[in-house]
Amino acid sequence: MADQKGKTILTGVKPTGAPHIGNYIGAIRPALRLAASHEKSYLFIADYHALNAVYDPKALKEDSYQVAACWLALGLDPAKTVLYRQSDIPEIPELVTILSAVTPKGLMDRSHAYKAAKDRNAEENRDPDADVNMGLYTYPLLMAADILIANTDIVPVGKDQVQHIEFARDMAGYFNGAFKKNVLKLPEYQLEAGGALLPGIDGRKMSKSYGNHIPVFIDSAARRKLVMKTVTDSKLPAEPKNPDENVIFQIYTHVGTPEEVQAMRDAFEKGGMGYGDAKQKLFEALERNFEQPTAKYNELMADRKKLDDILEEGAARARKVTRETLSNVREAIGLARLRN
Amino acid sequence: MADQKGKTILTGVKPTGAPHIGNYIGAIRPALRLAASHEKSYLFIADYHALNAVYDPKALKEDSYQVAACWLALGLDPAKTVLYRQSDIPEIPELVTILSAVTPKGLMDRSHAYKAAKDRNAEENRDPDADVNMGLYTYPLLMAADILIANTDIVPVGKDQVQHIEFARDMAGYFNGAFKKNVLKLPEYQLEAGGALLPGIDGRKMSKSYGNHIPVFIDSAARRKLVMKTVTDSKLPAEPKNPDENVIFQIYTHVGTPEEVQAMRDAFEKGGMGYGDAKQKLFEALERNFEQPTAKYNELMADRKKLDDILEEGAARARKVTRETLSNVREAIGLARLRN
Repeated sequence: MADQKGKTILTGVKPTGAPHIGNYIGAIRPALRLAASHEKSYLFIADYHALNAVYDPKALKEDSYQVAACWLALGLDPAKTVLYRQSDIPEIPELVTILSAVTPKGLMDRSHAYKAAKDRNAEENRDPDADVNMGLYTYPLLMAADILIANTDIVPVGKDQVQHIEFARDMAGYFNGAFKKNVLKLPEYQLEAGGALLPGIDGRKMSKSYGNHIPVFIDSAARRKLVMKTVTDSKLPAEPKNPDENVIFQIYTHVGTPEEVQAMRDAFEKGGMGYGDAKQKLFEALERNFEQPTAKYNELMADRKKLDDILEEGAARARKVTRETLSNVREAIGLARLRN
Repeated sequence: MADQKGKTILTGVKPTGAPHIGNYIGAIRPALRLAASHEKSYLFIADYHALNAVYDPKALKEDSYQVAACWLALGLDPAKTVLYRQSDIPEIPELVTILSAVTPKGLMDRSHAYKAAKDRNAEENRDPDADVNMGLYTYPLLMAADILIANTDIVPVGKDQVQHIEFARDMAGYFNGAFKKNVLKLPEYQLEAGGALLPGIDGRKMSKSYGNHIPVFIDSAARRKLVMKTVTDSKLPAEPKNPDENVIFQIYTHVGTPEEVQAMRDAFEKGGMGYGDAKQKLFEALERNFEQPTAKYNELMADRKKLDDILEEGAARARKVTRETLSNVREAIGLARLRN
């Protein structure tokens, strides 16, 4: 990705509670690697997006702290990646208001999130807009403003989020066209290989809703207990085993070193590797990956002042860019640049 | 209106070019009187509303200055009434984002402005949402935020704007209900007797589109010329005339003193008042009303620095209130209060 040096990459994270290792492997770790490989990287906590679904002040505050502590504990360097809360950037909602003036209503009607809500209502024979609030309906506008305000070059996305970036490009184009000036940069998406499918300890896809997940931030005893509960068949240690049909091994591939993974594969295939042994190795690899981050996470969660400082510092850094973008936008539409 | 002392009254003015005396009599003068009769009054230039229809930076800037100069020239006291540009108050769009999260989409679909656009499209056999942008569609949200952010008690409105205040009340209620806290004050509307119908110089309703209007800010020679062009019948000076069928008299009732108006009525009815005489009296009354304001208007329009200073001072004063409101709102939803 040498050609992406100097470019700005942006990721938004909706605050939705503590992550499990499936989230880490599938989303957090790839994003941390991407952030580290770009000169400018932004990571924001999408609390105004969360507000569309949950009206719970304690949860919103707590979940936002959790996101910040989580990413910091897992290696995000706040001196490099700008980490901020969406709600600390007033330029975002102001840009939404401005983009609204140039965005046809028809675009919103094509939003996947809105269509999905309408489909659900249709299935249940309800009014198409039942339980659809304006936050959900205008979600692509807020998303576009998140991206455009930071002068973003690249947004890493899963397949289901490509539309958001396309909409953001559309809106930037509407704006630049309406005011005959290239003010807003058209962002590009970068398709991420879509979170590795990590099995949970019962062999199904790891998911909080199945209750088969291994949380990232958990003490060693609890971690060991979950690993030991992982399902296996009843083959004896001496028997050869197919590692690719083996939940322990499948998780291990993501947390062991390449050498360790190869060694476990060989041992399973040859025979002689018992499940108890394999679980112990998996536990050790998980410990190596998550014991220190868990300590750091707990430390950060116990020090809200420090989290606030980091987030405020991030917001101040982000606003150098967002205020510049909004100033350019305001100038183009006939308003004064932001003062001081 | 003794019971309205201590209450906050708010008026928004869309920047749409220089006013004629019909606008003054029907809208500006009543609003100035209302503002003077309330302890706290706010008047804002609704430039973000204007943006939904016009993509012309020069016009937006110029029209906003015109609105400010106009109201100041006609007697608005900026030391009393807080005069500001909507676009100088970032708390307004931020409140829009927050209100969106609690406002059902169905409410927007009932907006008169949106329905009118759909009706026009239906008549022309076009897509219902053709030429409807998100600014028009979400107009009631921005309007509600304008009102609620200023902690407004009373909004003077014409009949066709009652819905905006009802929607603002609805949204305040949704918010307070969702967060179980009385944070946003429910505003009330005050029905204004709906602009006196002033005839234009050709006898039809005064309107720029008919080209029959007398601008407020115009030099004396031009003003005299327009008055002298006012239509009359061919009755001779000595004949008695019905003043209520008389365009000159109808305009005069709004700009002459009560004594002068009574005197002209008597003279018309008795006979002896010629149209030339009446036009001269009307011209003199218009001069008395508008000569000095015109000079002041021209002076202000030639001194953008002074207008900027007044508007910035107004924004600073408004933001003491709007930041307090938004801080309370943010606290209720689980975010930090605004930092100074």
